[in-house]
Amino acid sequence: MLFHQNTYVDRRARLRTLVGNGLIVLIGNNDSPFNYPSNTYKFRQDSSFLYFCGQHRDGLALAIDCESGVETLIGNDIDIDDIIWTGPVPSMHDMAAESGIGQTAPMSELARLIQTAKVAGRKVHFLPPYRHDTMIQLMDLTGIHPSQQREAASMELIKAVIALRNIKTEEEIAELERAALIGYEMHTAAMRLAVRPGMTEAYIGGVLDGIAASHGSHVSFQSIVSMHGEVLHGYPSPKVLESGRLLLVDAGAETREHYCSDHTRTTPISGRYTSRQRDIYDIVVDAHDLALRHAKPGVRYMDVHLAVCRLITERLKALGLMKGDTDEAVAAGAHALFLPHGLGHAMGMDVHDMEGLGQSNVGYDEETQPSAQFGLASLRFGRRLEVGHVVTDEPGIYFIPDLIDLWRSKGTNKEFLNFDLIETYKDFGGIRIEDDLLITADGCRFIGEKRIPYHAQDVEAFLQENAEA
Amino acid sequence: MLFHQNTYVDRRARLRTLVGNGLIVLIGNNDSPFNYPSNTYKFRQDSSFLYFCGQHRDGLALAIDCESGVETLIGNDIDIDDIIWTGPVPSMHDMAAESGIGQTAPMSELARLIQTAKVAGRKVHFLPPYRHDTMIQLMDLTGIHPSQQREAASMELIKAVIALRNIKTEEEIAELERAALIGYEMHTAAMRLAVRPGMTEAYIGGVLDGIAASHGSHVSFQSIVSMHGEVLHGYPSPKVLESGRLLLVDAGAETREHYCSDHTRTTPISGRYTSRQRDIYDIVVDAHDLALRHAKPGVRYMDVHLAVCRLITERLKALGLMKGDTDEAVAAGAHALFLPHGLGHAMGMDVHDMEGLGQSNVGYDEETQPSAQFGLASLRFGRRLEVGHVVTDEPGIYFIPDLIDLWRSKGTNKEFLNFDLIETYKDFGGIRIEDDLLITADGCRFIGEKRIPYHAQDVEAFLQENAEA
Repeated sequence: MLFHQNTYVDRRARLRTLVGNGLIVLIGNNDSPFNYPSNTYKFRQDSSFLYFCGQHRDGLALAIDCESGVETLIGNDIDIDDIIWTGPVPSMHDMAAESGIGQTAPMSELARLIQTAKVAGRKVHFLPPYRHDTMIQLMDLTGIHPSQQREAASMELIKAVIALRNIKTEEEIAELERAALIGYEMHTAAMRLAVRPGMTEAYIGGVLDGIAASHGSHVSFQSIVSMHGEVLHGYPSPKVLESGRLLLVDAGAETREHYCSDHTRTTPISGRYTSRQRDIYDIVVDAHDLALRHAKPGVRYMDVHLAVCRLITERLKALGLMKGDTDEAVAAGAHALFLPHGLGHAMGMDVHDMEGLGQSNVGYDEETQPSAQFGLASLRFGRRLEVGHVVTDEPGIYFIPDLIDLWRSKGTNKEFLNFDLIETYKDFGGIRIEDDLLITADGCRFIGEKRIPYHAQDVEAFLQENAEA
Repeated sequence: MLFHQNTYVDRRARLRTLVGNGLIVLIGNNDSPFNYPSNTYKFRQDSSFLYFCGQHRDGLALAIDCESGVETLIGNDIDIDDIIWTGPVPSMHDMAAESGIGQTAPMSELARLIQTAKVAGRKVHFLPPYRHDTMIQLMDLTGIHPSQQREAASMELIKAVIALRNIKTEEEIAELERAALIGYEMHTAAMRLAVRPGMTEAYIGGVLDGIAASHGSHVSFQSIVSMHGEVLHGYPSPKVLESGRLLLVDAGAETREHYCSDHTRTTPISGRYTSRQRDIYDIVVDAHDLALRHAKPGVRYMDVHLAVCRLITERLKALGLMKGDTDEAVAAGAHALFLPHGLGHAMGMDVHDMEGLGQSNVGYDEETQPSAQFGLASLRFGRRLEVGHVVTDEPGIYFIPDLIDLWRSKGTNKEFLNFDLIETYKDFGGIRIEDDLLITADGCRFIGEKRIPYHAQDVEAFLQENAEA
């Protein structure tokens, strides 16, 4: 377990208080089949399950009786046939004792526990499942079809889990720092490789996978490594890197205890930004730095996002790509042609932290509601910031040929966009710069003691030093 | 697509002939959630789907009407919102045309196609699903609960797919050679790192992940990297390698087109085998080489396995670890204390090729039936070999403390086992050597032009050269 037993005991006690009554059931993850039943992807425990009990084994569930306070770790012990294949593992009893959980039960007991609670008219609280095996398990336990389970999940439990997990403690921040250190190794390796002749996107993607697994457990999401930065999720292709283009790398790691990092850098493959690239790049840098100055407790992250949109609009006007009144352009969402996504998202044990519990539950509240406008609708975190929030700061500017064609053909926001000039940027690609912000008492700071260079002159200096080495 | 269109057209025509009548439905894979719905593991297409149509996208299905010969590629085109995130992708029509498939239909049509076939009293053939999302999809399409689907799958379709995929063609062997080349890079990197002070199992595991992803698509299964070779699936731990121990590495790669390699090497961390290690190591080498001499068309692989078991028993008798009559010991399964698994399995587009279709359907037939005896029961391939079969050759000798204790306490096979001496080997670990055999007209050969060293003197020479470098 990552933390002392008391941490988990305390988290469960607070969860029980927040939920109030009924039976809480947290289902851990199972192995996920790759290409046949017994060939599985690398195991990843469910983050909420891990947060409340700290155990990494597959095939577990945790039941918490809110009224009686009885906690039960549910799962089956392994036998000699398993030991031959997997080696000795801790018993159910040992795991429960380690986590400070009072009792254990075999998996076959879970149905009876749920049935007993239901018969007594008590609510059974479960989180929305995202693994399809969990959906089948839940269907068999509750009779609810997978397509209805998200709706049937407990909003009290969802809100209680989010209330706890959204505020990162000091011991969690220390683990996020470890994740950032792996991220530093990944991104500086990618930058060094980007300027080496003959490299492919796929080769660099593999190196990132390797560093994340060597030093942590896994990448925190499938790395984006692409000369087509304008494709927001551009997975690495076997294409050889071309001098003169930009390479966008958006990648992060999970520590062995599943805390994440998430960074993006956009590197000139030739080692230097062209002046056209530099014009756009510097706007993104300034947008990125603006968020660092604006984000602090009490400020809505949606307002930081909108300040970034105004900065980008102003600066694209100066380049002649946009026109008209800045506030009106941003209100109309015209800038979203270039920035169709949000400034950031919560980050923690999930790289989009708790996204499976519903993005609007994590990043919005009664005061701040999600927007339906194209671009702003993709802002995953808009609420007022609090001390202990961790959010990404990831502005970008993209030239997406299909989107440009669509807007131009429909005349979308044509009063704010100089489509003739924009047309000449269709071969540009896209730029994004991303770091992870911790909200502190007096503002915010980037997570990561070692900083991956991002100011243009620092990037170029780094590439030159490493090309010479 | 990896091969020419004709390859896929021909495979489907042969499949239709083998199945004879009814509607064949092959369901492709979808993205598999990692820690929330939209954060997914790296996509892996289903091997049979890929074998018959060559398309790599998620969300597809293929319907083949055996009587009319009509083939339909089923799936949905993507829209502008998807293009922003994933970039432009080929249309359904373009994919179908590329694969030589006559028509396309949206996914919503699949239910109607199946319903129409059923109403007409025709059989709907599907393969046993292994992904749980596919199980839910099949449940909604057919009304069959996931727990019953394996039984409800079409044995005609299973047998037809196996008949085709079990025999590798020249163009497939060329792709397996490419996978073996990645395996060579992986294993020689692991060997070099194993003798470098301060390395951890996890670090080496990450390097293997990286090489597989850089040069192919992915490891073909989760790499086994362990000083505890006696744990058959010992995943890498953060433990630092200890001089004097052996490091067992069982790892393979998939090419971008999903053909696999699978190799095992057992390396002395000090650079040299101790004499106790060498005694055991040389037995495994000789067992490995015996399979290379015995495997050929017409020979049952179960007989090769049993010849290996006799060799191991003879040699362990010479070391004083076993005793009694060799044939009787092997008939009793006494050697399985040291070798509790089989000599090999089919390998191809799945590292245990087609294991999801039922191991006994792939590796056994009416003539050769699986055994229920401990050890022999784990032999995944026992049938007579044919030209074009690819099977692994992976003998091993392990000292598994829990198994030794269990057998000793129950007196299992005590007439063939010198438990007092065996007891002193409980700290030994385990050794396995594995390569992939292609059955040829006049015998067999290893796949892989570049050979990863495995004879003790070659391993030690390799380690010495690379330590000096």
